[in-house]
Amino acid sequence: MNISHIEHIGIAVENLEESIKYYEGVLGMKCYSIEEVADQKVKTAFFQVGDTKIELLESTSPDGPIGKYIERKGQGIHHIAFAVPDASEALKTAEERGVRLVDKVSRPGAEGLNIGFLHPKSTQGVLTELCSK
Amino acid sequence: MNISHIEHIGIAVENLEESIKYYEGVLGMKCYSIEEVADQKVKTAFFQVGDTKIELLESTSPDGPIGKYIERKGQGIHHIAFAVPDASEALKTAEERGVRLVDKVSRPGAEGLNIGFLHPKSTQGVLTELCSK
Repeated sequence: MNISHIEHIGIAVENLEESIKYYEGVLGMKCYSIEEVADQKVKTAFFQVGDTKIELLESTSPDGPIGKYIERKGQGIHHIAFAVPDASEALKTAEERGVRLVDKVSRPGAEGLNIGFLHPKSTQGVLTELCSK
Repeated sequence: MNISHIEHIGIAVENLEESIKYYEGVLGMKCYSIEEVADQKVKTAFFQVGDTKIELLESTSPDGPIGKYIERKGQGIHHIAFAVPDASEALKTAEERGVRLVDKVSRPGAEGLNIGFLHPKSTQGVLTELCSK
């Protein structure tokens, strides 16, 4: 598996602009990128904190995964993403070790990463992403 | 505020032993410390991942904060902790910037850190810890 670090923490927010104000104005971080991932129906904002990023996620549609998540659970920490050398290989390894996958094969994510999710039913409730460059 | 990195991610689990097996056996991490924080009614297990730690939290009592959290929301990511030079100062700064505090003054946490929490009502649903050595 060879996880090197936490690539990012995904946080579901209702209003990206308002949340950016909080992370910049209160916590003193700096948003370095805003990106829309049409495939996932989200607009994202990124902040670098040490070797990890904070990825704020606002849904662009009520029927997207983040829209549904917020409707069910409210705003909050949505997922944790671990950096691995090869996301496809890591997904395969996780499956061999008994983990149920959301993504059978890796797919393109934000920031040009190759990503895939493990199912929270297999990870004690933690939606877990594996990603590689 | 001067956040240097994410000190740890706190994850609420029902069974520490079972979760350690997952983080070690599936994700290939190594638990380097198990510690009970009597004050918080939790048993914790730590894993180093890059410059961040994963802190698994099992409640030692149904009426502790983690016990109540799991009853309400189930297992999952519980909080995010940012490293700052001085937790007391950072709490003061956050309050001056309009954030509601859980801890008006910092207090001792796991691993000998000085810690304090911001209220999720002020942080878009993210229970946020500030901690310093």
